[in-house]
Amino acid sequence: MNYKIALIHGDGIGPEIVNEAKKILDKVCQVYGHTFTYTNVLLGGASIDVHGVPLTDEAVAEAKSSDAVLMGSIGGDAKTSPWYQLEPSKRPEAGLLAIRKALNLFANLRPAYLYDELKAACPLKEDRIGDGFDMIIVRELTGGLYFGERKTEEQDGVMTAVDTLSYNEKEIRRIAVKAFEIAMKRRKKVTSVDKANVLDSSRLWRKIVEEVAKDYPEVTLEHMLVDNCAMQLVHNPGQFDVILTENMFGDILSDEASMVTGSIGMLSSASLNETSFGLYEPSHGSAPDIAGKGIANPIATILSAAMLLRYSLNLDKEADAVETAVQAVLKEGYRTGDIMSEGCTQVGTVQMGDLIAERI
Amino acid sequence: MNYKIALIHGDGIGPEIVNEAKKILDKVCQVYGHTFTYTNVLLGGASIDVHGVPLTDEAVAEAKSSDAVLMGSIGGDAKTSPWYQLEPSKRPEAGLLAIRKALNLFANLRPAYLYDELKAACPLKEDRIGDGFDMIIVRELTGGLYFGERKTEEQDGVMTAVDTLSYNEKEIRRIAVKAFEIAMKRRKKVTSVDKANVLDSSRLWRKIVEEVAKDYPEVTLEHMLVDNCAMQLVHNPGQFDVILTENMFGDILSDEASMVTGSIGMLSSASLNETSFGLYEPSHGSAPDIAGKGIANPIATILSAAMLLRYSLNLDKEADAVETAVQAVLKEGYRTGDIMSEGCTQVGTVQMGDLIAERI
Ligand SMILES: CC(C)[C@H](C(=O)O)[C@@H](O)C(=O)O
Ligand SMILES: CC(C)[C@H](C(=O)O)[C@@H](O)C(=O)O
Repeated sequence: MNYKIALIHGDGIGPEIVNEAKKILDKVCQVYGHTFTYTNVLLGGASIDVHGVPLTDEAVAEAKSSDAVLMGSIGGDAKTSPWYQLEPSKRPEAGLLAIRKALNLFANLRPAYLYDELKAACPLKEDRIGDGFDMIIVRELTGGLYFGERKTEEQDGVMTAVDTLSYNEKEIRRIAVKAFEIAMKRRKKVTSVDKANVLDSSRLWRKIVEEVAKDYPEVTLEHMLVDNCAMQLVHNPGQFDVILTENMFGDILSDEASMVTGSIGMLSSASLNETSFGLYEPSHGSAPDIAGKGIANPIATILSAAMLLRYSLNLDKEADAVETAVQAVLKEGYRTGDIMSEGCTQVGTVQMGDLIAERI
Repeated sequence: MNYKIALIHGDGIGPEIVNEAKKILDKVCQVYGHTFTYTNVLLGGASIDVHGVPLTDEAVAEAKSSDAVLMGSIGGDAKTSPWYQLEPSKRPEAGLLAIRKALNLFANLRPAYLYDELKAACPLKEDRIGDGFDMIIVRELTGGLYFGERKTEEQDGVMTAVDTLSYNEKEIRRIAVKAFEIAMKRRKKVTSVDKANVLDSSRLWRKIVEEVAKDYPEVTLEHMLVDNCAMQLVHNPGQFDVILTENMFGDILSDEASMVTGSIGMLSSASLNETSFGLYEPSHGSAPDIAGKGIANPIATILSAAMLLRYSLNLDKEADAVETAVQAVLKEGYRTGDIMSEGCTQVGTVQMGDLIAERI
């Protein structure tokens, strides 16, 4: 089959890791007889450098005309990069928020699990890890505080800044449906996280999630307050299957969860709209400190490419092949520096890509 | 000297742990020749049971007329307690929010540190702990999303809920000053946490914090995004000295930090206004599952009483004596169940109170 894939190389280590993921996609084409046509789309710092803004209408149109988008990482070193001299709405991250909205990518899926081979990298003690953990965070991505009205004003000589957290029932329902659908294919447990003891938006969240739950009688639904969830991720991460939450809580909790695994360089993510279209990117950032050194771990991006094959192109067999190849390389003891441990063989970005490609 | 102390026994294990803290205060009176007069103030579930509401004007007046308030913990089991049949504004937690506002307790200080004696209870691996950690979270407590306007409305048949996150520069300045003052007595580092790459309120936060920092040239100021901070607390908690942040972020991060120590049953907190007046409470909750069993750890409440002596009554020597007594009991190997480890002697709530009192 023929597919059109938009590549956003992005900033920092982005270009290096996207190149390796493309290498994997090319190998998939070769082995399974597909044709992928790639287009390059500029976003973030790379777009600022060329166009002066972090996202152009042309970039959005190009992304929209593809079957899926594969992205590296966005942004630079906020302390030193000239991008951060610009006003906030013109910085790299503003481009990321804008493309999520423009493509209606309301469902952000972030798996966080502990690889058996990488238990040494997990910051938690053995007895906390128990039988390991394997959860997925389903984060609402186009609503809430990040997209509400905001203003900064002076009144009687005092500056006041206001952000607005708003959700309507449709926005809540569609993300809840995603979470329950995913739970049906997993261990059938949804933990919905909110702050319903304080916020109106959380109370509506809880009500709608309960309504949606009625359509999934096999799934166990549990509600958890966000402060408690931040504790439980450290205390007993094995209790979670699917965590369903709003934009800001999802931002915080998914980063915490990925760090709890100890291998953030391994974690992929997908941002989906109501169709099969989606944007796929590693959970980690652009790591400007190691950009260009050839040592970045490309696995999170490669696994994001696997998610792309599975969710947007419906190529399950091909996705399985990529994931199996990653597992094989880990089992054989190859590691990039970030996940290196005793007795393993340390390799660079390109070599890791080659090793995985060879096993497809 | 004579002081008037308001006691809020609260719900769940609250009465048991407040009794032990009172025992300690009584011992302090005896040894150092003070007189403490106690009044009981109802808040939360205990107030609902008597008055039908979680906080009365009389309770606020009584608290205000005291030199300081010592509190247990508020709330019950949200799944089973009849309090949670009430509408949100009438539930136990609403009383807690209301008393914070009524007493203008804008500065919430939550120490989180790793006791040498309790390293076994820390969920992190030895190599992550490094030289240990000792931080204090300074959380703004009367602004932001928790106290903004909110509404839930139907428009064209669709329900929408809105919460508002608002901060003015005065609110930011006074909490920033607290954080820098505290940092001056510690390791002189402030990490201000926000989401300035997205929120207007965070940008104003950052601007005002930077202004305040100019008055404290000896203190190193660093800004950190909230999602990154949620990661760093797991990855490398030793990097933090004072974390300064707004209400909701502080709620989430302080709970995460307390869990990272592994000994949430040991952590005290203070909520202060612009004078020396304050409300002191353990960082942990009301643990309804173990209420009345005599096994709750009273140390967080006892250390909160020590903070009360230090911050509100200016009795440093007495506060030191309480803290030293707690350390001594730990060194001698006494533990409540939550912090029990091999080779130690397990004791109950009352016995732990007695042991500490004896050492003052
Ligand atoms: C860069 C930033 C705006 C973004 C977010 O907060 O959504 C990032 O942290 C993420 O989680 O993808
Ligand atoms: C009970 C709740 C309203 C409260 C808060 O979120 O402030 C609690 O979690 C706390 O942190 O003291």
